[in-house]
Amino acid sequence: MDAKAEALAAAAAVDEARLWSRQMAMAEIGATEKGGVNRAALSDEDRRARRLMVEWAGDLGFEVATDGIANLYIRLPGRQADAAPVVTGSHLDSQPRGGRFDGAYGVVGGFEALEAIARAGVETERPIDLVAWTNEEGGRFQPGAMGSAVFAGVLSLEDQLGLVDLQGVTLEDALAETLASTPGLEQRPFGHPFAAYVEAHIEQGPRLENAGTTIGAVTGIQGLYWYTVEVRGEEAHAGTTPLKARKDALKAAAHMVHALGGLMADETDTTRFTVGRFECHPGSPATVPSRVLFTIDFRHPDPAVIARIKPNIEPVCKVNAQGCAVSIRPTIDNAPLQFDPAVIDMVEGYAARLGHSVMRMPSGAGHDAGHINHLCPTGMIFVPCERGVSHNEAENATPADLAAGARTLAACLVDLANQE
Amino acid sequence: MDAKAEALAAAAAVDEARLWSRQMAMAEIGATEKGGVNRAALSDEDRRARRLMVEWAGDLGFEVATDGIANLYIRLPGRQADAAPVVTGSHLDSQPRGGRFDGAYGVVGGFEALEAIARAGVETERPIDLVAWTNEEGGRFQPGAMGSAVFAGVLSLEDQLGLVDLQGVTLEDALAETLASTPGLEQRPFGHPFAAYVEAHIEQGPRLENAGTTIGAVTGIQGLYWYTVEVRGEEAHAGTTPLKARKDALKAAAHMVHALGGLMADETDTTRFTVGRFECHPGSPATVPSRVLFTIDFRHPDPAVIARIKPNIEPVCKVNAQGCAVSIRPTIDNAPLQFDPAVIDMVEGYAARLGHSVMRMPSGAGHDAGHINHLCPTGMIFVPCERGVSHNEAENATPADLAAGARTLAACLVDLANQE
Repeated sequence: MDAKAEALAAAAAVDEARLWSRQMAMAEIGATEKGGVNRAALSDEDRRARRLMVEWAGDLGFEVATDGIANLYIRLPGRQADAAPVVTGSHLDSQPRGGRFDGAYGVVGGFEALEAIARAGVETERPIDLVAWTNEEGGRFQPGAMGSAVFAGVLSLEDQLGLVDLQGVTLEDALAETLASTPGLEQRPFGHPFAAYVEAHIEQGPRLENAGTTIGAVTGIQGLYWYTVEVRGEEAHAGTTPLKARKDALKAAAHMVHALGGLMADETDTTRFTVGRFECHPGSPATVPSRVLFTIDFRHPDPAVIARIKPNIEPVCKVNAQGCAVSIRPTIDNAPLQFDPAVIDMVEGYAARLGHSVMRMPSGAGHDAGHINHLCPTGMIFVPCERGVSHNEAENATPADLAAGARTLAACLVDLANQE
Repeated sequence: MDAKAEALAAAAAVDEARLWSRQMAMAEIGATEKGGVNRAALSDEDRRARRLMVEWAGDLGFEVATDGIANLYIRLPGRQADAAPVVTGSHLDSQPRGGRFDGAYGVVGGFEALEAIARAGVETERPIDLVAWTNEEGGRFQPGAMGSAVFAGVLSLEDQLGLVDLQGVTLEDALAETLASTPGLEQRPFGHPFAAYVEAHIEQGPRLENAGTTIGAVTGIQGLYWYTVEVRGEEAHAGTTPLKARKDALKAAAHMVHALGGLMADETDTTRFTVGRFECHPGSPATVPSRVLFTIDFRHPDPAVIARIKPNIEPVCKVNAQGCAVSIRPTIDNAPLQFDPAVIDMVEGYAARLGHSVMRMPSGAGHDAGHINHLCPTGMIFVPCERGVSHNEAENATPADLAAGARTLAACLVDLANQE
């Protein structure tokens, strides 16, 4: 068999029912009454999920390793034992009231790809590693995407050890307990070389479903910018103070939101603009508000659009201040990133060869792949999620779509693992 | 002397220094560090203020009475002991961080008018009563203007007795303690006849100061309408959900506020429109808000304008709902009220005769006079307050303006108390 034929043979060995059965087994760990999961990073539930992965790996004879932040590695060996592996993976932790697929699909679906490759009898030059990154959600310990960030050297492990959750538990203690729960594993260094990285994930948005398309060949992660806007006016009596004499922080902030909507207007519906937090003080019906605090979440994949909008956010707020004082503080400033063109092409190509409809699309959310993209050729595979609902117990996906993603992933992993 | 001459003679006996000295003595009771007062209704401070009034009344030989809700009456007798009295007054309770003059001026200035009339040797046909109404502010027990409302039969005393303040004290207990603090007083029935009622008050707005005018001949109390608006959308991921697929409760509510501002637009700057409370849920920067609750406070003195605006409030909200569900609940619906034309003319006439600049104006805030207006010919006298600041420890007024108001009040009381 040539390399392409081997890739397609591995894909053909993906078993939809086996994959779905494993997804459901994983979803039982931390299951919530409403059908979601609550599996906080480094919690008992997270440890049970890890042990389940180790158990599955043992059943198939795959090697298991870890590192200093408990990222968990499962290896399908290659002919060249010392070659840098091709890697797939995602995360097992969830939002407090999260869904069954966000993260878990990238790990369980990645495991299915490894099993399919093995069962197809396909042997690659490079090893293929599956990784479950620690604490992607950041629900218990902030920031999220911590395991991949520490691996990539964006964060230092030492700086994270003192973090404390709401119950007063330090990350250091939770981490030690987690590492102790899977004893005897090989320890890998942070930043050890990857030949390539491909992450499978549910889309967490409605574009694939709306387009009737099964596979998203992810082109990159859109830029993400957060601002906190503080508007300061003057308290005044609602009955007696003429409108022209007021400095009304609420009305000024409402005008800012309205005007920012105009700045963000986009016929292609690509721009994401959200005001998620909005606080009004003192909050008495008969008192003109003196202070409003609100957040801006602005995202776009295109640096040219970002370059046009970003410098106008502060001026648009100030022009609509209506006599109030305005201060704007940036809190997140993540430029958009592009995945490797060859990996994008490969995802698109194998999806089509396997008979799946496919489209190129940026990722709206951040992922571990964002950190790994700085280390090696990286890409992502999206599958549809029902109505685009994610970070929600109602999150759902179909067995067929999950299998289609695993097939595409298996093919890409084999192809990449046979490249020099 | 004819009746007008007696009225002017009484006014001439008003003593600016004595009035100011009494205002400052009253302001010491419940004084706050920042120069305001904290004198909750039926509190120890309120009782001290009442005892001070009783002491001053005793010094001048004025009779003191009370009623079942501890409204406090001080009488300057008339020739006809049994005739319905002409009444002036206001309240001694304050906002938690209130000013020295809101309410207290109407009581202390009313006392100055009584003293001036007595010292001028003017004897009127009817008695002249000063009343300190209980619990106008409603800061401790809601609603406010309780004493005048119970007096006027708008509220029943029985319904108020079970009210509980934040410390768990019932109104019944606080009232009993207050009545016991001024023992042996004559008990008057609620709703006993008044011949007329004139209340002096600081304006609580900036119109007199801006116009350089000393006396406001108050024409009535503007209409007051409160609504609670609930906007229900759908939680969604800020990074992945296209704007066109969202039901964003925050943006819809901001558009409503913006559009309501257009509906309320008024070149004469008479309309009062305030959104004082605005809550946004769930309040996470990366989540599209699913629920916003905000209040509307709309006021205007003119029934024709109210009739044009009121029916449009709900449609304007619904037109700007952007796919969200909107429900609007009215919580206050107080039609504007007009004071007695003869009393307004009289205030205007005496202010001018006494050499004070005077203008007609509606009251932006509610007052005890609003309830009494239903019982007898009623009017109000406004004096300027600095920068229009009220319900605030920085509230201020000048001795000269307070004296001008007391002079105008004294003249009106004498004139009214000599009418059949």
